[in-house]
Amino acid sequence: MLVNSRIRGIKPSYIRDILSAANAEGVLSLAGGLPPQEGFPLEYLRSSFARLGDSPELFQYGPTGGYAPLLDFLTSLYEIKPEGDLLIGNGSQQCLDLIARAFVEPGQKIAMEVPAYVGAMQVFALAGADIQTVDSHPDGPDLNQLEVLFSAGETSIFYAVPDFHNPTGRCWSVEIRREVAKLCVQHGVTLIEDAPYRDLRFAGDESPMVSSQCLESSLVLRSFSKTAMPGMRLGCVSGPAPWIEQLRLVKQSADLHTAVPMQAVLLDLLRWEGYPGHLQRLKKQYRARYDTLAKALEKGGQGRLNFDPVSGGMFIWATLQNVDAEFLARQCLARHVAVVPGSAFYLAGQHDVDALRLNFTCVDSDGLERAAQTICQLLSD
Amino acid sequence: MLVNSRIRGIKPSYIRDILSAANAEGVLSLAGGLPPQEGFPLEYLRSSFARLGDSPELFQYGPTGGYAPLLDFLTSLYEIKPEGDLLIGNGSQQCLDLIARAFVEPGQKIAMEVPAYVGAMQVFALAGADIQTVDSHPDGPDLNQLEVLFSAGETSIFYAVPDFHNPTGRCWSVEIRREVAKLCVQHGVTLIEDAPYRDLRFAGDESPMVSSQCLESSLVLRSFSKTAMPGMRLGCVSGPAPWIEQLRLVKQSADLHTAVPMQAVLLDLLRWEGYPGHLQRLKKQYRARYDTLAKALEKGGQGRLNFDPVSGGMFIWATLQNVDAEFLARQCLARHVAVVPGSAFYLAGQHDVDALRLNFTCVDSDGLERAAQTICQLLSD
Repeated sequence: MLVNSRIRGIKPSYIRDILSAANAEGVLSLAGGLPPQEGFPLEYLRSSFARLGDSPELFQYGPTGGYAPLLDFLTSLYEIKPEGDLLIGNGSQQCLDLIARAFVEPGQKIAMEVPAYVGAMQVFALAGADIQTVDSHPDGPDLNQLEVLFSAGETSIFYAVPDFHNPTGRCWSVEIRREVAKLCVQHGVTLIEDAPYRDLRFAGDESPMVSSQCLESSLVLRSFSKTAMPGMRLGCVSGPAPWIEQLRLVKQSADLHTAVPMQAVLLDLLRWEGYPGHLQRLKKQYRARYDTLAKALEKGGQGRLNFDPVSGGMFIWATLQNVDAEFLARQCLARHVAVVPGSAFYLAGQHDVDALRLNFTCVDSDGLERAAQTICQLLSD
Repeated sequence: MLVNSRIRGIKPSYIRDILSAANAEGVLSLAGGLPPQEGFPLEYLRSSFARLGDSPELFQYGPTGGYAPLLDFLTSLYEIKPEGDLLIGNGSQQCLDLIARAFVEPGQKIAMEVPAYVGAMQVFALAGADIQTVDSHPDGPDLNQLEVLFSAGETSIFYAVPDFHNPTGRCWSVEIRREVAKLCVQHGVTLIEDAPYRDLRFAGDESPMVSSQCLESSLVLRSFSKTAMPGMRLGCVSGPAPWIEQLRLVKQSADLHTAVPMQAVLLDLLRWEGYPGHLQRLKKQYRARYDTLAKALEKGGQGRLNFDPVSGGMFIWATLQNVDAEFLARQCLARHVAVVPGSAFYLAGQHDVDALRLNFTCVDSDGLERAAQTICQLLSD
């Protein structure tokens, strides 16, 4: 049986592949984007799990758009306007995939910053999109490049991760947010604001969401994988009701609906009075781990490795001077330290920068120090 | 934002839409394909739910293909050969969708019997397939039509539900199974054998799976929605390893992986020594309910409504004499009985037969009798 031509264009995720190696005993993995599982709020959820045994209705077929009480809760939490709507999917990854399936035709032009989130590149490649890229700067995307692209009039979607971008960890400035929203409205471009890391700010002040400045022409993706637990596979997408209706139609075909027991457990977690405290602890831990990794890299990198500080999220984007990042990543793995080379975050054949994406959330401070030492030792060799 | 042209071609599922109406208080629903939730094995699963609280690893990101212990169990259960492989998805619906996304190009010809499973028509329409149909007979698809289609050399996939077909409840004869497998091999057509109802036989002898006679050119879909519980959204697909590898690639992009806690709970259920007894009870209950509905329809239908007996599954396909099935379905709903008219199971614009699909698994015997009386009363009016 012949494989669909668009699949042949997808580059498998180096990251998910490296995760198998990274999961091996004794490997310090800074490769994934995993929350530390020792912090999962399972103790609180015991009563929630027990209640599943008394709730057969949660195990019956459910509505395509999501479990009604969770939909109500999120609609209120995110202040969804009457002309808006919300759909629950299997992680924000599925929500993004539904968007591409509903709104992208083969050959259609969509834009994103590079380096880019690998999962988004895969989704749009699978939809047959013509992916246009703009450079990422410390305070956001290159506005000149964006305006040139949008002015050509063929870009229909701009996919963006304005808060603690994966892989760069960058957070857009307030000005850039305003300008991007303005450009989107002006040129009729739909903004997809992907916000999985937004609630993981551990320093500085929150900026308004870009979509809040162009509500009628944007879809917002939120994930519960980073703040709650990824194995449950829950995320949501909100935006204008007629667009969400189209996503519901695709979701009906894709898998009928998302697992209801998982949605009920998430709702219990989000309603928990201790949940804000859980988030605070998580962010405090992330900040401590980030500080440890940053200090160790500053100390050992000695100009061969540079990075901009981050105020949240899960990643440091470390650029290298005259070093082949892929070679370095392989050398690291041979010394039981897993990292992802920057090339993974570019389109195939695209010019990339020599860089490493370093996750600081999943390994403890001692491990992060040892990993940084290994990386810096290899750099100085 | 413009909607993808292929979405505009999907007919929304009348069934899922009617389910909202059917779920209203006081409605006797013979419309869905729901297992009765009072029979869900939740009592046994209490210990399984409790164990979730001690298993943070189940809430971490997991492998795209499925939770390894469940994959191992199913690989052994279904006797997957070394050259084969298996992937777990969000219900067999997602597995079918992954197949269409991996192997169907827009305009590609795929074949199925009509009347047909609505979810399959949606999936293939969304993939842009050119859907060819062959007539369904009581013992299987029309072999002459199938041979003519296959001989033209353009059909790449034959999608089939050989056991207790939805909506007809039909089960292919041993001879037809052999012939279809032969035709598929001879003409290089891939068979997709969808088997959600196969384990729900309550009379007669099991026939070999069609795919067992053309293993190298078939993919098999299995569902745990009918035998376990649909709200967990679990199913699997098995077939030649290189094909499953392609499905894994699409699944990575579609939603990374299926919820791990649900997979762990399903594994506990399948391993349970009481599970075969659970299935037996389910089938005994289905048989009793089927007998009740069949008798009531035979008694009240008086030649205006006819159906072939079924030996398993969830549905009776009742054909009508000189009655508009859609009109009748609306009349039934006005009297608080939900049924699905036959036209829902045909492609848009296709010639259909006046028929009703009647589910006999979700309403108790008393309710089934009352529903049959309502239908028959309306028919005689």
